[in-house]
Amino acid sequence: MRIGLDVMGGDFAPLAIVKGACLVLEELSSDDELYLFGKKESINEILGEQNVSDKRLVIVDCSQVIDMHDQPIKAFTAKPDSSLAVGFSYLKQGKIDTFASAGNSGAMLIGTMYSVGLMEGILRPCLAALIPKATEDGGVTVLLDVGVDTDTKPETLYQFGLLGSCYAECALGIKQPRVALTNIGEEDGKGNIQSKAAFQLMKNSTYNFVGNAEPIEIYKNNVDVMVCDGFVGNLLMKNTEAFARIVVKRGLVDDFIKRFNYEIYGGLPLLGANGVVIVGHGISNEKAIKSMVLQSKKIYASDIIGKLKKELQANK
Amino acid sequence: MRIGLDVMGGDFAPLAIVKGACLVLEELSSDDELYLFGKKESINEILGEQNVSDKRLVIVDCSQVIDMHDQPIKAFTAKPDSSLAVGFSYLKQGKIDTFASAGNSGAMLIGTMYSVGLMEGILRPCLAALIPKATEDGGVTVLLDVGVDTDTKPETLYQFGLLGSCYAECALGIKQPRVALTNIGEEDGKGNIQSKAAFQLMKNSTYNFVGNAEPIEIYKNNVDVMVCDGFVGNLLMKNTEAFARIVVKRGLVDDFIKRFNYEIYGGLPLLGANGVVIVGHGISNEKAIKSMVLQSKKIYASDIIGKLKKELQANK
Repeated sequence: MRIGLDVMGGDFAPLAIVKGACLVLEELSSDDELYLFGKKESINEILGEQNVSDKRLVIVDCSQVIDMHDQPIKAFTAKPDSSLAVGFSYLKQGKIDTFASAGNSGAMLIGTMYSVGLMEGILRPCLAALIPKATEDGGVTVLLDVGVDTDTKPETLYQFGLLGSCYAECALGIKQPRVALTNIGEEDGKGNIQSKAAFQLMKNSTYNFVGNAEPIEIYKNNVDVMVCDGFVGNLLMKNTEAFARIVVKRGLVDDFIKRFNYEIYGGLPLLGANGVVIVGHGISNEKAIKSMVLQSKKIYASDIIGKLKKELQANK
Repeated sequence: MRIGLDVMGGDFAPLAIVKGACLVLEELSSDDELYLFGKKESINEILGEQNVSDKRLVIVDCSQVIDMHDQPIKAFTAKPDSSLAVGFSYLKQGKIDTFASAGNSGAMLIGTMYSVGLMEGILRPCLAALIPKATEDGGVTVLLDVGVDTDTKPETLYQFGLLGSCYAECALGIKQPRVALTNIGEEDGKGNIQSKAAFQLMKNSTYNFVGNAEPIEIYKNNVDVMVCDGFVGNLLMKNTEAFARIVVKRGLVDDFIKRFNYEIYGGLPLLGANGVVIVGHGISNEKAIKSMVLQSKKIYASDIIGKLKKELQANK
């Protein structure tokens, strides 16, 4: 398959990205191709330093860069030859199968809308994070949305349940994933106006809705997917990450805490996009980039797009 | 002073509550009085078992109990001789100076509204939690609201900043507390519709507003007060508590983690109430009850009600 990677996105770009690309080569098949979008000169310089020459690396020279300070909507018009703009155009034209970047996540969203767009019937796309459970089997909970839709409508929360269920099945191999609504109490009728309305929709869904769940359930094994508003999910994810980082910094580490490492997951899929788009962490190092590329491959292979389309059709 | 305590509220009532009352006696002054609202027979039985007889304990016999399954609004009409109803009536009549319960928190809110009510100008009351910072000085961050107002309007968030600032000054002795708005990014203009609107109001406030803060700031020392919607705050508090509990359960404990113990703080003040009302944790044991009584005393002594009234007048 053809995996697209934005070399210019992320706090440590392009060095960490190209090094990550080199690292991942040994885990790619002989017929995989890794498309590197960015400044050819910089890429070749780093490849030279790394002493890497591999015909599976395809460099697509782009003269411009969309950085963290660029206004996402303006950026694509202003910088048509940026690595993001060109990468998304390749994705749209079917020249690559997936596209991943650790750069400006707002621009990733806009790039998606301008290129492959959303699947038919999708109200809003969302980002799904995998949070480690404190269970012996090393499982994870899918938490979504964690940052795209900051004012989520009840019908969108309902649909996030479907997206999360499909993702848990495709990416984690869970049959009939247990989908819960993140709430301040387990009882029916708990919550704010938004969650009360979403609950009513979700209880009549075709996916396996198991009711409201409090944050503790993220770490236990009673649910597989926890749905929330993007504002709430982003805060919960950041709160968990912050606490885990502090715990590690204080030298309190065990198998559970070690799994709170963004390097392992690499990036978050933008669910609802009409193509495989992976949004990486801005601070991505080479290991994280390697994971992001492997995740791109895994998600593409799972045919989540095809399965989601079928589900959306059935849920029309 | 005269401290009111609901003996019938909480998962381990009345035993844990009466035992907590016995425990706290040695830390009360000779002219303090601890009013115990509940079934006289049960209270006397436990006092007998504890071999405690102290003239500072004033038993107010109440024949009824509002439990966790009672509908808060109906409960007060249906159970006029419950420990909660009688306790609040004492508070309203000035027969006690403070009232605390580890019982039905919804009923505590309704009881407050029906008795002492809210201070003039208060839009919505809120609960303020103290979350330990991971700093050497053992400081805490005031997080509010953590569960009363689940659909908070921007002007209410603005006012929570004032309540939190006043509470941090009175209860923690912090001059000019740094008040932040809990948000998904630090930059101005970040967030959802609610937080964007609140930011505009808060930046023109009379309190020391320092801008948006991400969840990591709860544990650092750049802010003293973090304001959020009650739905969000409740989830954040529960997420932190859940994570801390898991970490403890896994044997990862140090000075910071040890401080995540509700027993230390005992209960949360209902800010905005026109009297000192403390809401305890349902699972309160005797140590937590002791802390809750001591906190009642401390908050009353700080004259937070008088100071808040002055602030509200100035902010009219």
